[in-house]
This record gives sequence, C-alpha cells and structure tokens, in this order.
Amino acid sequence: MTELPPTEPPTRRSRQRARPPRERHAAAIERQSPWRLLRNPYRPFEILSADELEAIHEASLDILEQVGVAVQSARVRELCHQHGAEPKGDGVRLRFDRNLIREAIASAPSCFELTSRNPARNVRLGDGYLCFTPVSSAPNVSDLERGRRPGTFTDYCDLLKLAHVFNVMHMVVGYPVEPIDLPVPTRHLDAGRAMLTLTDKIPRVYCHTAQRARDVLEMVRLAHGCAPEELQERPRSIAVINTNSPLQLDAAMGEGIVEMALANQPSVITPFTLAGAMAPVTLAGALAQQNAEALSAIAVSQFTRKGAPVVYGAFTTNVNMRTGSPAFGTPEYAKAALISGQLARRYRLPFRSSNINTSNAPDAQSAYESMMASWAAITGGVNLLHQSAGWLEGGLTASFEKFIIDVEILQMFASFLEPVAIDADELAVATVAEVGPGGHFFAAPHTLARYEHAFHDPLISDWRNFESWSADGATDATHRASLVAKEALASYERPPIDPAALEALDAFIAKRKEEGGAPVN
Amino acid sequence: MTELPPTEPPTRRSRQRARPPRERHAAAIERQSPWRLLRNPYRPFEILSADELEAIHEASLDILEQVGVAVQSARVRELCHQHGAEPKGDGVRLRFDRNLIREAIASAPSCFELTSRNPARNVRLGDGYLCFTPVSSAPNVSDLERGRRPGTFTDYCDLLKLAHVFNVMHMVVGYPVEPIDLPVPTRHLDAGRAMLTLTDKIPRVYCHTAQRARDVLEMVRLAHGCAPEELQERPRSIAVINTNSPLQLDAAMGEGIVEMALANQPSVITPFTLAGAMAPVTLAGALAQQNAEALSAIAVSQFTRKGAPVVYGAFTTNVNMRTGSPAFGTPEYAKAALISGQLARRYRLPFRSSNINTSNAPDAQSAYESMMASWAAITGGVNLLHQSAGWLEGGLTASFEKFIIDVEILQMFASFLEPVAIDADELAVATVAEVGPGGHFFAAPHTLARYEHAFHDPLISDWRNFESWSADGATDATHRASLVAKEALASYERPPIDPAALEALDAFIAKRKEEGGAPVN
Repeated sequence: MTELPPTEPPTRRSRQRARPPRERHAAAIERQSPWRLLRNPYRPFEILSADELEAIHEASLDILEQVGVAVQSARVRELCHQHGAEPKGDGVRLRFDRNLIREAIASAPSCFELTSRNPARNVRLGDGYLCFTPVSSAPNVSDLERGRRPGTFTDYCDLLKLAHVFNVMHMVVGYPVEPIDLPVPTRHLDAGRAMLTLTDKIPRVYCHTAQRARDVLEMVRLAHGCAPEELQERPRSIAVINTNSPLQLDAAMGEGIVEMALANQPSVITPFTLAGAMAPVTLAGALAQQNAEALSAIAVSQFTRKGAPVVYGAFTTNVNMRTGSPAFGTPEYAKAALISGQLARRYRLPFRSSNINTSNAPDAQSAYESMMASWAAITGGVNLLHQSAGWLEGGLTASFEKFIIDVEILQMFASFLEPVAIDADELAVATVAEVGPGGHFFAAPHTLARYEHAFHDPLISDWRNFESWSADGATDATHRASLVAKEALASYERPPIDPAALEALDAFIAKRKEEGGAPVN
Repeated sequence: MTELPPTEPPTRRSRQRARPPRERHAAAIERQSPWRLLRNPYRPFEILSADELEAIHEASLDILEQVGVAVQSARVRELCHQHGAEPKGDGVRLRFDRNLIREAIASAPSCFELTSRNPARNVRLGDGYLCFTPVSSAPNVSDLERGRRPGTFTDYCDLLKLAHVFNVMHMVVGYPVEPIDLPVPTRHLDAGRAMLTLTDKIPRVYCHTAQRARDVLEMVRLAHGCAPEELQERPRSIAVINTNSPLQLDAAMGEGIVEMALANQPSVITPFTLAGAMAPVTLAGALAQQNAEALSAIAVSQFTRKGAPVVYGAFTTNVNMRTGSPAFGTPEYAKAALISGQLARRYRLPFRSSNINTSNAPDAQSAYESMMASWAAITGGVNLLHQSAGWLEGGLTASFEKFIIDVEILQMFASFLEPVAIDADELAVATVAEVGPGGHFFAAPHTLARYEHAFHDPLISDWRNFESWSADGATDATHRASLVAKEALASYERPPIDPAALEALDAFIAKRKEEGGAPVN
C-alpha cells in the first residue's frame, strides 16, 4: 500500500539529452504554438452568490451618490455635468445618480475587435476571448547578469522584441519599462516609433496628457497607413486608465479617457484599490469602492461617445499589514479578481486582470504568487490579462527571467484552455482492450497517431531525470530562463512595414521633435 | 495613462526590518493559524458537461465488462467471484458487469470521520471538507546543504516533525521518505512507532502485505489505547491503494484493500494512469481507464464490507513525449484532476488529488507546476490533497525546502477558502464617506479594528521593498525555506501520549521483532 514511484519507461527519443543547452532552448522556442487568439471554453469559477454580488453593486452606487468622485479636469467635469452629474461640496467633487450610471454604462459594448497592421494579429476583447500583454510601466529592469538597474531605451526595445517573439503574447505595451535615457518631451515619440515598428502586435499606448494622447494616436494611424475615420471605425490600440484611489479622477487620466473615446479607441479603466490603504481594509469595501471608481470612469467614456469600447479593469489587493506596502498575488487578491470578473460580467463588459507578484527575485515566490493571480484571473473569465509576463517586485522591475517563466506559465494556460475532447475515438475503449491488463500503450497505433502533439511542450520546464539534469549542469528554472531570453532575442526578426507608412511616421516624428515634443507638466 | 506604480505608504511597524532572519522566521512559524479543519465554501469549478462526464462513466463500465481487470490475489478473486464478477480468459482476469459495479459502489459513504488519539485533530473526508497530507514514499531526501541522498530514519523522523509543527498539515504519512537504513522485515515496526509517537495527527499507514497491514493496524489500536471494536467503529488511519495500470490489481494491493475494509479503515483507491504509457494517450481514454480501475477496486472494498469508507483517488497525468517519462503539474494533469473531481462527485465519494511537480530543484518550476496541480485540485473540490508538501522530482525526492514552500502555498489556500463576508459593516460605505476622495484608510477606526488579522500572513514570502531585502542578504524563497525548516525543527515538541498505551505499543513491537517481523516477499 505505497504510492507507486513513477516508473521511467524505455526512452523513445534520447538524442535530445545530448544536445547542448543553447541548441535545446532555441529548439523549444521554435517549437512554440503559432500565434492564435485564445477563447476560454469553461464556465467561470464564481465565489459570490448573485445576492452578494448585488450588495457590492448597490454599495458602489451608494458611494457614487453619497460620496461622489473628485474629477480634477474642468473639461471632464463639464462633460459629466452636461450629462447629469451634480457638483458636490468644493465643486471638484461630482455625485452620480444611480440611474445615470446604469444608463451610461449600458451603452458600452460587451465585445470588440482590435485591428492590427498585420490582419493575422487582430484580437477580440470580451465574449470569452482571452489576450495576454506583457509587463508595463516598470521604472527598473533586471536580469541575472547585470542585476537591477533603471530602464533604458535598449531594455525597452529588448522587452518589445521578446513580446514579439513569443506567440502567446497577443499584444504589446508601449512602455514595458520606462526608457529613462530618452528626454521626456520627446520620449513618447521615440518609444512610440519602436512600439509600432519592432512588432506588428496591437499596442497598449501611453498618453499622460491630451497632447501625448493625440501624438501617439496619430502615430498609430500613420503606422497603419489609414485615414482618421478608419482609425475610428476600427480601433487599433488600447490605453489603461488608473483612477487615483480613493475616488479621484486625475486630470491626465480623465482627459485620456476622453481622447481615447473621441478616437473610438478602448480605455481599460483600472482602479488601484489597495485594501487597508487607499480603500477599506475589508475586501467587500475595497471592491465596492473599486466598482464605484470603475463605473464612474466608464460613464465618462460613454458621455464622450456612446458605445465607445471600454474594459472593466480590477486591481484590488491588500497591503502588507506589517509595513503598509502593497502585496500582490495574495489570497485576497485572488478572491478580489474572481469577484471582479463576476462584476464585469454583471455589466456585460470585457474584464481585465493581471499576473502579478510581490517577490524581489524571479524565484519560487514570484512563481507561486503569479500563479495565484493568474489562476484566479483565468478561471474567473478574464479577457485581458495585463502584466502577464515579466512583472517583478510589485511592478517596480521588469525582469527578463520572469518574462520567460511567465511565457511558460501562459503557454501552460493556453494548453489548459483546450477543451478535453470526448468521443469514441478519444475514449479509446478498443485501444484499452487491445493493450489489455499489464500491457503498455507506447506502441499502440492510437498512441503513435497522436503522441507528437498530444501534450503541452515545455519551454523551460526540465522534465529529464535527476541524473541527466545533474550531468547537464543542474540549472534551476531561473537560469534556464536567462538562457532562453538570450536565444529569443537572438532569434528576433523585425516584421515588415509598408515603406510609405514608415516614411510618414518618421516625418511626423521629425516635425513634432522640431516643435519640441510635449512639454513636461 | 500609465499603470500607477505601487506607492509605499508610511511604515507602520518598521521594527521587523531590523530583526535577524532567524528570529523573524521563528516568529512567522509562531504566528501561524491554529490547526483547524478546512471546508471549501465554493461551488466546484467544472470543465465537462454532464453528458461528457456520463460518456467517460459509460466507457469505464464498457472496459470493466469487455476487458476486465487482472486480479492477482486468489483471495481477492474469490471474493469478487462470490459477489458476481466472472472469470475471463486466463482465470486471473475478471469481468465486472455494469450493474454489479453500480450496486457495489452505492454503499460507500460520501463522508466519514477519522479519529485521532487527540480529539482536537479529528478530520472529516468528504462533504466539502479538505485535508492536507505531506509527501510520501520518496526514496530520496534533499536539502540545500546536504544535497540529494537516500532517505534515512533520521530524515523520516524530521519530516514527521515538520508535518507535526505546521498546523495546515492535517494528517501525516507513515513513510514521508523511505528509511532505508532500517532492516526491511522490521522497518514497518520502527517507522510505525515514530509515526504514532512523534505526532498525534492521523496517519496514513503503509501495509505492503496482509502481515504488515495487520501489524500497523494493531499498532494504531495500541497507540490509541482502544479495543478492536472501537477501531472498527471509528476509523483512525487511512491507506493508499494504487492499481497497477493498465487494469491490474496486484496481490499486496488487493489484500490491503481487504484488510483495511475488514478493520473499517478507509482505502484511498488511486490508479496511476499515465496517458501515453500505461493508459491511452488521450485524456478521455486515460480517465475512462482510471475510472474503471478505481470503480473495480472500490467494489472490492464494498464486497469485503458494505459501507467501508473509501476515497476516490486520481493520478492521471501525461508522459513527456520526448523521453517517455512521467510529467507532473502539467496542463493535462490539471484538466484530469478537475474531471476526476466531477467523477468522484458523480459517485458521491470523497475525492483525493495531489500537489505534484516534475522539477529536480525546489525552484520556480517546482512552484508553478505545484500551483497548476493544487489550484485544479482545490477549485475542483478535492477532499484529500495528498503529497501536498515536500514532493519533488516526480516523487523521487522529499525536499525540506519544498516542504516549507508548500506549507506557504497551503496556508495561502486556507486563506483563499475563507469566504468574503458581505454585509453593511464589511461594505463600509460609511467609512468610504468618512475618508472621502483623496484620503487614506490607514487611520480609519474601521481599519484599526481589523488590520491585525485582515490578511494572510506569509511564512516565507518576503514582501519588503527591494532595498530592505537587499540589505538583508537578498535571499530567494528557497533559501528562506531552508532557514524556516531548521527553525521549525528546532521548535518541534513531542505531543503527549498515554504511558500505558506507549508501553503496550512497545511490548507489541518487541514481540514482533522477536518473531522476525514481516518476512520479505
């Protein structure tokens, strides 16, 4: 009565063991599945009853009616006022009637498409579709050899190239790391050019002010070689809008929503409601506040343009009660992500969550915290998993090794989301009869017809036995990830771009640089 | 439009940063939650429709009717024959009619209690209850300092002590590692004594033959100081039975089921159906075969004693198609675990799954593979999570560091399974109003009344900022786990045992040793 130790059947293909690590890693990159849009076939995992969900919903409407939101931009306040929001107190704060909110958010689409300059890279957000995007906004970058350091434009480009190489990464982000060696007034121009030329995947753009927003959207349009109305007809970029919790919509963020909606480009509205610090210490309270902030900002997008595409984003997590600093990938975060998915579905909106962790190193902690966050997001029906590769240290660092570890994890999830086929052929009763008690299935025709593509094929997971692994240097997953990152960068190839579009893009950048770019606030 | 970098609010309690690591780890062990029985409040995550599940069920009954199972023990064959199973072919193989199976398994209880010699450690299996047990059956043991080596009785005892120290570990296992320095004929006697005296948690016992089974059950009875009928009335141990896939029930395993059922102790029936090797390469086929093997062995328990407690165990995973060796914690494993949970619930049986991985080191790979397995098990409604702490290298090694990493993961799951409370107090609209836009919640009475126990308190996760973490040695999670393992062993205290029971136990062991123990087969 012992658990049988796993047996090691005769090796079918042993030649791989003899290959040098570099060659083996390059082969694993080459073997990755083609780029494909994922769709989650499973019914979401839900942890609140309908009544409990409704209580959060109603509490958030109470907050919007009784407390209101401080809207810092006069332009956005005026817009809200025109649509029925009422000034409260100091004149910056607005209160939103529950019926006003209900009507406003009803016009947001439940699913929309984003168009790439390469039609094979178009994505859909909502309706069970699932997209992964890499880490963004980190001030630092790190790798095993050079350690942790402030991000540069070279790192910025390398992270974009990694995101381009791996097919499981559906979209890219304009700022995977902040390129602090570029001058601020023109940074968005150089960064935008790299984002639009190093890859043909749909970008998440950054536009901290109306001027930068207009610049970057014009650059998207030029790279796509399309007319302004074509940009509006078919959205080609997304932007993330963070509310400033509790209950503030900063000027740059509010105007960002408006500019994106005017151009019919989607905003991902994401309150960063940190339970115990910028939100109530209880998850119910933090979620009610998150929901109030999200619904009011979503209403701003719909006030700007009825039917503008928008995503319900969630980022509720808890502080470390010993230090007051935020913790990510916690059990509380997982529960908040699952409930946020329920809320997004209640409003028939696409749902954004993240793959995040608190660890200072790309180690076991970073992996189990990431998995806590990702499993909750994915089983909770996420449509857009932001920060899904490379996030480390609570978002303060973009790690090359963590990027690769996350790509492995995401490839595992892509495989997990392939439904188990159930039919006579797959149930294989005849094969079981043919092999019989005590036989083995290695040589069965049923096996031979399927084995090459039957299972997830790992990128960095080492499944060799201890002896082979030891003989080959006994490297841990993090060190293997470091090698894979280098191989991936070496294998990078720039995708083609229409020369006329590139010329127009460069002319615009030159002109805007001459004009001084976007002045610093 | 940037993702806001996490802010670091003013430190509330900074004294922890100055504490030396050893003291800090000891404090984290001390702060762990008390031992408590977990109950999963969430509706299981399911990935097959009822029709698809039924197709697997029917295929497995087809296998039992058309192919049958090779039952190696004449005693068990005779028992099955008496209850209606028919010989097929060589006389070792038996076929089971679908109605025979249906009727037999119907008498197995859906939930039962296990009684500890310390009533505060009683557990329940089934009906939403959830128990964690440590790694078992590994031939090797490893830690960072001494590397990987064959297990000894000292390691065996140390792993039992770790399992005793951590409250999230509900039960223990007789052989967390094989103590190869003990002579085989009397190994079960010394190992059994350690298992019954180093801890008062309910043991998973090992009994490779009828003789060893009788010895260890007698030792359980003596340690509990109870009469034979009291052992039968209230089960006090469990054993795992692995079928020998495909479709064989070995003599020792078959007789183990019978001995356990005669004593009314539960068997955890666990086929090890390795898709592509000992089972069809398709998950549907591997699960149909798993189910056929499980149902026939469960029937044997019910033939022995109607109503004997039994657990539906699942271990379907896939081979590494490059080498033919098994892989654990894969996406296929996760899907198989979720479907196995659905099958167990279809039969109203407690469900056993595992926390397993393929990694050769307690690194990021071991963590993400473990999380893949555990999330599937836990959201899939597992009642008994075996191998839940310390398993490494496909089960060939018990790792001290992985044990601690897993305890952290299990503590996170325990916290995840605490339902989110939704009421006016928790929704905290009044507190949101009081703090208002732009304020913070650190000093709110609502926060102060709750913050000490609001969130999961980590064991090895380091949530300090990069600078504090670096100044303190920049240790990764695996190295912190090594320190925590040492602190945990240093903090171990042997639980009391009734002196008369101990004397009787020792007398029995002395007598059985004099008799030569159990001869090797």
